[in-house]
Amino acid sequence: MKLKDKIVVALGGNALGNSPEEQLELVKHTAKPIVDLIEAGHEVILAHGNGPQVGMINLAMSTSAASSANTPEMPFPECGAMSQGYIGFHLQNAIREELLSRGMEMPVATVITQVIVDKEDPAFKKPTKPIGAFYSEEEAKKIMAEKGHTMVEDSGRGWRRVVPSPQPIDVAEKETVKALVKHGHVVITVGGGGIPVVAEGHRLIGIPAVIDKDFASAKLAEILDADYLIILTAVDKVAINYGKPDVKWLSELSLEEAFKYIEEGHFAPGSMLPKVQAAIKFAESKKGRKALITSLEKAKEGIEGLTGTVIVDR
Amino acid sequence: MKLKDKIVVALGGNALGNSPEEQLELVKHTAKPIVDLIEAGHEVILAHGNGPQVGMINLAMSTSAASSANTPEMPFPECGAMSQGYIGFHLQNAIREELLSRGMEMPVATVITQVIVDKEDPAFKKPTKPIGAFYSEEEAKKIMAEKGHTMVEDSGRGWRRVVPSPQPIDVAEKETVKALVKHGHVVITVGGGGIPVVAEGHRLIGIPAVIDKDFASAKLAEILDADYLIILTAVDKVAINYGKPDVKWLSELSLEEAFKYIEEGHFAPGSMLPKVQAAIKFAESKKGRKALITSLEKAKEGIEGLTGTVIVDR
Repeated sequence: MKLKDKIVVALGGNALGNSPEEQLELVKHTAKPIVDLIEAGHEVILAHGNGPQVGMINLAMSTSAASSANTPEMPFPECGAMSQGYIGFHLQNAIREELLSRGMEMPVATVITQVIVDKEDPAFKKPTKPIGAFYSEEEAKKIMAEKGHTMVEDSGRGWRRVVPSPQPIDVAEKETVKALVKHGHVVITVGGGGIPVVAEGHRLIGIPAVIDKDFASAKLAEILDADYLIILTAVDKVAINYGKPDVKWLSELSLEEAFKYIEEGHFAPGSMLPKVQAAIKFAESKKGRKALITSLEKAKEGIEGLTGTVIVDR
Repeated sequence: MKLKDKIVVALGGNALGNSPEEQLELVKHTAKPIVDLIEAGHEVILAHGNGPQVGMINLAMSTSAASSANTPEMPFPECGAMSQGYIGFHLQNAIREELLSRGMEMPVATVITQVIVDKEDPAFKKPTKPIGAFYSEEEAKKIMAEKGHTMVEDSGRGWRRVVPSPQPIDVAEKETVKALVKHGHVVITVGGGGIPVVAEGHRLIGIPAVIDKDFASAKLAEILDADYLIILTAVDKVAINYGKPDVKWLSELSLEEAFKYIEEGHFAPGSMLPKVQAAIKFAESKKGRKALITSLEKAKEGIEGLTGTVIVDR
């Protein structure tokens, strides 16, 4: 291992809690393992999810929720931009405090970040990602007719809006992130997978969609020529036969093995599957690039090769 | 005039409209004069207000508004962080598009920015800045008892929460802004006067307050060693005897004249007065620094000395 690796860390939105008070507490725990990596000499770029947070913002700022008739309806990309400000504010302060408490003076910055997707992405034909509140069938049909949203019945819990989840193709603010990383800043970026935009001529246009934050982090890591992508999750390692008596925890996965296990259905869609897929995307983008899937607490040990699951093109 | 000046531009929040659709249209008009300055060779750092926007967010995300019982109460500093993301997203894209349409490829970035205030600032003893919704006297008294907010009767329109408006003493993300400006980025920062924070040991703590965006911009301009602070307003020039038959529009104001006219009550509190005061603060911070008060449309002509009111320490 080089003394100093460039590491993109992808943090889950669920790890950030459901209210500002919870988030303010949870970011303190998040900051420690992140600063461990920085203290070990690595360059760290932090990406994060925003599922619960953007859901909360979208709900509060939606006129269709009977609730807030006094406020204008806020489109979904704008809600994403708000969530980046909200989460970045707490995260950057927690990291700054942890750095200072260890005598390290490094600037920490949140960059409002847009991720560009292809408007011809097949995902636009089949929206799959549920967002916002639950509605009755009657309400849902009214909203669909009035606003043109796609809504589906969600596991008996009611009707919900679904948006597409297209693939990231570029990070609009990549030069900003690069410049800051080069100058020793800790950067928080592609929050919630980035604000989804399509490019039309010189214009970037926000679209209602959710870019998977692990895919966005993999794309960012590729653009930044990172050495490592660390995808944080609830478990220390990836497993096959998960939840069964013959569960097997994996320390390393070749691309071939990863593809085979995906084929065999070992990884749950919406959970471990997109993480393994994002890890593959980064690992196959260039020889030597390593993706590590582990828990927040084990991030530093994982980089040291002591735990976690490494996906690499050997 | 040097060929290339470093210019902090302070844009009013009212110029950004009251809904996402309005804002998306208005930022296009805002972008043109800003890009005129950039095309003329200047380094531009953009600050902006957030009055209507943070009010809207605060209202939607407040449980005391009977409206959104399903969402957690969002503290005021967090609402400010959200407004920076929301406004920055639109502003940065409008500027990017205007630059590209003129063949200029420059990165544009929004930095989530905190402005540090002194917790001993006398403003904390006397909250003056109204925020959020109007309430009946009965509701207001209940909220005051439950949440400890200060609320006052506002010109016969109902009761409203008031927060302090302390003076900015530092910009927490100044190194980030400096690094980006140095590398030719157009930076959007101190949105809404910055997220107000106090420093306690290694920690920055968000506080419910509103930092005047012109004062925050003046502080930022001072920290960045800017040549110009441009404060944009609805009129081309500052006037004495405004609204009277003997109105006199001013092209230049010395510090002495500015203090004298303030004393004589020529400038309306909450309107032109804080702009002139912020202009003075910047102009008196170092010989040669010029503050220009003019309209958005006249910003470039103002820098060329053709219009606007320049406040300078001769």
